[in-house]
Amino acid sequence: MNIGSTIDHSSDSSDSSSGVAGSLLDRIGSPSDLRKLPKELLPKVCDELRQYIIANLSNNPGHFASSMGAVEIAVALHYVFDTPHDHIVWDVGHQAYAHKILTGRKEQFQNLRKLGGISGFPNPHESEYDTFIAGHASNSISAALGMAIADSITPGREQLKTVAVIGDASISGGLAFEGLNNASNNPNNLLIILNDNDMSIDDNVGALHRYMTELTTSSRYNRFRDKIYRYFRDKGVINEKRRGMLLRLNNSLKAFISTQQNIFEGLNIRYFGPFDGHDLERMVKVLNEIKDMTGPRILHLRTVKGKGYKQAENDPTTWHAPGKFNPATGERTSKKEDGILNWQQVFGKTLVELADLDPRVCGVTAAMPSGTSMNMLLKTYPSRAFDVGISEGHAVTFAGGLAASGKRPFVAIYSSFLQRAYDNIIHDVCIQGLPVCFCIDRAGIVGEDGVTHHGLFDLAYLRCIPGLSIAAPADEATLRNLMRHALTINSPIAIRYPRGKATSPDWQTPFSEIKPGKSRVLAGHEKPDIAILSIGTVSANAIKASEKLAEKGIKAEVHDMIWLKPLDTAMLENLASRTDKIITVEDGAITGGLGTAVSEWVANNASGIHVVSLGVPDKWVSHGTPAELHKSCGFDPEGILKAAEKLLNLTAE
Amino acid sequence: MNIGSTIDHSSDSSDSSSGVAGSLLDRIGSPSDLRKLPKELLPKVCDELRQYIIANLSNNPGHFASSMGAVEIAVALHYVFDTPHDHIVWDVGHQAYAHKILTGRKEQFQNLRKLGGISGFPNPHESEYDTFIAGHASNSISAALGMAIADSITPGREQLKTVAVIGDASISGGLAFEGLNNASNNPNNLLIILNDNDMSIDDNVGALHRYMTELTTSSRYNRFRDKIYRYFRDKGVINEKRRGMLLRLNNSLKAFISTQQNIFEGLNIRYFGPFDGHDLERMVKVLNEIKDMTGPRILHLRTVKGKGYKQAENDPTTWHAPGKFNPATGERTSKKEDGILNWQQVFGKTLVELADLDPRVCGVTAAMPSGTSMNMLLKTYPSRAFDVGISEGHAVTFAGGLAASGKRPFVAIYSSFLQRAYDNIIHDVCIQGLPVCFCIDRAGIVGEDGVTHHGLFDLAYLRCIPGLSIAAPADEATLRNLMRHALTINSPIAIRYPRGKATSPDWQTPFSEIKPGKSRVLAGHEKPDIAILSIGTVSANAIKASEKLAEKGIKAEVHDMIWLKPLDTAMLENLASRTDKIITVEDGAITGGLGTAVSEWVANNASGIHVVSLGVPDKWVSHGTPAELHKSCGFDPEGILKAAEKLLNLTAE
Repeated sequence: MNIGSTIDHSSDSSDSSSGVAGSLLDRIGSPSDLRKLPKELLPKVCDELRQYIIANLSNNPGHFASSMGAVEIAVALHYVFDTPHDHIVWDVGHQAYAHKILTGRKEQFQNLRKLGGISGFPNPHESEYDTFIAGHASNSISAALGMAIADSITPGREQLKTVAVIGDASISGGLAFEGLNNASNNPNNLLIILNDNDMSIDDNVGALHRYMTELTTSSRYNRFRDKIYRYFRDKGVINEKRRGMLLRLNNSLKAFISTQQNIFEGLNIRYFGPFDGHDLERMVKVLNEIKDMTGPRILHLRTVKGKGYKQAENDPTTWHAPGKFNPATGERTSKKEDGILNWQQVFGKTLVELADLDPRVCGVTAAMPSGTSMNMLLKTYPSRAFDVGISEGHAVTFAGGLAASGKRPFVAIYSSFLQRAYDNIIHDVCIQGLPVCFCIDRAGIVGEDGVTHHGLFDLAYLRCIPGLSIAAPADEATLRNLMRHALTINSPIAIRYPRGKATSPDWQTPFSEIKPGKSRVLAGHEKPDIAILSIGTVSANAIKASEKLAEKGIKAEVHDMIWLKPLDTAMLENLASRTDKIITVEDGAITGGLGTAVSEWVANNASGIHVVSLGVPDKWVSHGTPAELHKSCGFDPEGILKAAEKLLNLTAE
Repeated sequence: MNIGSTIDHSSDSSDSSSGVAGSLLDRIGSPSDLRKLPKELLPKVCDELRQYIIANLSNNPGHFASSMGAVEIAVALHYVFDTPHDHIVWDVGHQAYAHKILTGRKEQFQNLRKLGGISGFPNPHESEYDTFIAGHASNSISAALGMAIADSITPGREQLKTVAVIGDASISGGLAFEGLNNASNNPNNLLIILNDNDMSIDDNVGALHRYMTELTTSSRYNRFRDKIYRYFRDKGVINEKRRGMLLRLNNSLKAFISTQQNIFEGLNIRYFGPFDGHDLERMVKVLNEIKDMTGPRILHLRTVKGKGYKQAENDPTTWHAPGKFNPATGERTSKKEDGILNWQQVFGKTLVELADLDPRVCGVTAAMPSGTSMNMLLKTYPSRAFDVGISEGHAVTFAGGLAASGKRPFVAIYSSFLQRAYDNIIHDVCIQGLPVCFCIDRAGIVGEDGVTHHGLFDLAYLRCIPGLSIAAPADEATLRNLMRHALTINSPIAIRYPRGKATSPDWQTPFSEIKPGKSRVLAGHEKPDIAILSIGTVSANAIKASEKLAEKGIKAEVHDMIWLKPLDTAMLENLASRTDKIITVEDGAITGGLGTAVSEWVANNASGIHVVSLGVPDKWVSHGTPAELHKSCGFDPEGILKAAEKLLNLTAE
């Protein structure tokens, strides 16, 4: 069991491979049980937590490396603070698996991210220990500050503590900076734990990251030391003879620079650290020392992503979310190769092709180079591709700047994260009509990541923006042609596509022209009983439904709309003369998307058509497999079939 | 002419009160003319610019104090840089009036912010010297970085320079931080000018602001100096005898701390300053020295808001946008008092009333305390009201934290700026169903501020969010009742209202219950010829149109919908049995708002009703008075009348 693991004292966890952990963990029903343990036993709790995480995740995939790295932090926080009365706010819940297991969810952890099981992220609807939602990065400081200040002005709650736990990648987001910038404005006792593992999913970028690294390495310190020396030498305070002494003051001077002159202190937040985030004894001691202080504080902890599992420590990017693996060997279960790329690969390869053809092509992403496949362009044309870190707003405005100077940027960001850049899309790109191509990844239901990660709103929030074209391909050829089309127009365009497999091994079709606002017929009839209008990859569901309907003798005309905007109103006009029943299908919020656009046309043209819109209904959708969720939302082939039958019965004479 | 002005060498501008400036300005048709002048004449150019701004703005209101403070910066930049080949990116165009006058728009400046005249903000559609849009704060660094990097990788453009000019309030926004954090990632020559006038529209807030103040004042420096002293004393490097000398090293040590250990240098951006931003000679010299350097740099300039006009210098908040004034005396033209408050005052006073009644009530705004009237709660309950500075995202997430700890936050932000917080609304409030009340100010057409400031999209971008109620009052009583209603529900709600006057001097009606999703009849008929459904303050237009229709014998039933979500479908069902013609009216984008919601209901219920939607069409709307713009959009009373007549003719047998 210990092969592939760096844990060296897990003697009693021999049964952990079956998902059952050692004896200590079984006794911890809630953090109050943890707090009864002598602190000498805490490292053993950590070992058992790691074994339990390994045993479960090897079989039921999840976010592995981050959570392994934050085991000691979770244990120390619940040991020192009086949770759930005190608040722990986790930033990006990847880190929080140990927290979940310690807070009464050990059994449910076996159903992590499954339909009906617990969420992969903290969620207040799931547990009182999950104080705030944590799917999008960088929100913890602002949220925790709200809680801390609320407590400070509420009689009887003034003594409660609030802790935000934020990673070094998340803290580079603008929202985290805004939180830091406001942390000292009002009296509060906020404690910020900086869980610094030196990388986000991909390599961390940005000056703040380098700055933090330099806090603990020497280049900055060396410059500072040398300048201190030259300055005082020039002033006659010291002389060459004393230089040796000065140079020997490494540690104290380093402590001086890192605790007194750092950015956090510049923002009026007391800084402590850096400390080893796996040294439980030290952490518990420090936390006890600083927990009753008033005023905002930051505790800088250095951790190792994947800690306790050698393969993950060595390759934390792969082990961010490794899929299934053999816990003993660390061998990852390889996926069946069918030659079909995922949408991301088609995007990435096509972008490189376009970059070959057109020197104006650039690429921008925000901490998602491997997730979006922007890493392909980064590798091929490093000077033309930009990973700006967790800063979606900057990514879009920066792309606006590139476009304003003649470039053709393709901005690849996940749909739900692009919400962070909404004003940037409107103000910094679309008002100016700049030719930026938004490549909206993870659009629609994403599956196991759940409610915070589904990309449901993009069609709705983009459709109201003047001058922005919006399209969604149903196949690889259309994605490729849309991307190329973006280079032929002088205005912004958004192209959305989902997570997961594309449609065919023969993805690399030659580019051909695509006409804006022109749909295509997937199944035509002279006089259809009903029409199904779909957009994006769910067109496959529409076709399947039409085939089932055909089996029942019902003629369903199917159109792949391709474009939400401009909408193919010429086709609608023609269709209106042939049927009075339309079903729309989209993988996104019904409110505001294709169904809405078609309904607008119907009502504004008094066509008398009855429209039934399928997609994600107006409620929050939890986690599960995409297929399970498409079904529960009612836009799987069976759902479309049922809706068609209902519409035909309902409106039949 | 010099009364009320601190300008002391404007002898030859005696004709400037007529809007005609002195002789130098007349000779500057473009910056290349400016660059031909000997630098000794530049102060005179600045004087003439100020006189011209005063003469024009006293008569045609605009943003006064910021632009007066940035006159020397504009002159110095155009003098040193080769505009328009080099790029100057202004952050928040308030500062940029001198820039506009210098770049060939002296005559058009007389029509500033008027319908058909030039914009109050830089706008690339207006001039090649306006390199990027600049209505929302904090975007300049990201945009300019995009331009600088684009140039650096484009053959023949590598030598072009890019300058971002950002105020000290704007730089506290998260977007600016993201820009700073990315500035040193790729080779570029970006120069950031920090125009530090020590205040935003209202007082500046936040730790970064204090930090910058401390760069040039003494408290931080003193602490640093004392620590330096104690440290070296403890190490035996210096002794008590040398202390006096150390303490006398003020200036050089200050320079040391401000250029070597500051936040910007921490982010790997070379820092120069602070310098006097009104000292032209010095600025020109420094700019020439640093303009050819590579790598990102920041030049910190201290300026005085309102510089050159004593009243504005003394009270820059009032003089941010003072309205008309007597240029000689500084007396502001008082508005006619009719006892009718503006919507903002009704909001502010009602919020204080609710705070009196309910200790959970809190208020949050983002650098708009006077604009939104949140300053009333800030004054009455300072511990329960929060101005978080230019950081809309933080404002919303912080409110989420307050709500998660039992408070009832009212978040007052302008509609177009709330776009910055879109993901925060979704992720940090609505997914959790937290009871935050979004008070969306400046919703709809705002008038003279134009395209970047109209609040057109809120209904569309909010309607797709599950669990969020959305309402818009047509009168003060409804606004008050909606605000009180927010305290009775346990979920988020958005209330939108426009800039400007409310409806009646008798605004302070007793609170009464308001039913979610229930519209009210403003003009009823048993069998109407047509129905007009409106939401928000444009209900007044609907009533006026119905009266005009009545004069022509046409029975128009008018409903004030109040709620966009939940929509009053019971009323629609009833209405559908009585008429087949509906006009919807809203002060916002037609796409995605009330017209869309009603169309959805019509199409989904196969009602056969013909819907005509009035509001802001799907294109960008420039500046002008609200009345002018309502008319051009076609939802003034006359526009509604015409639409009704057209619909009646069109669909009549």
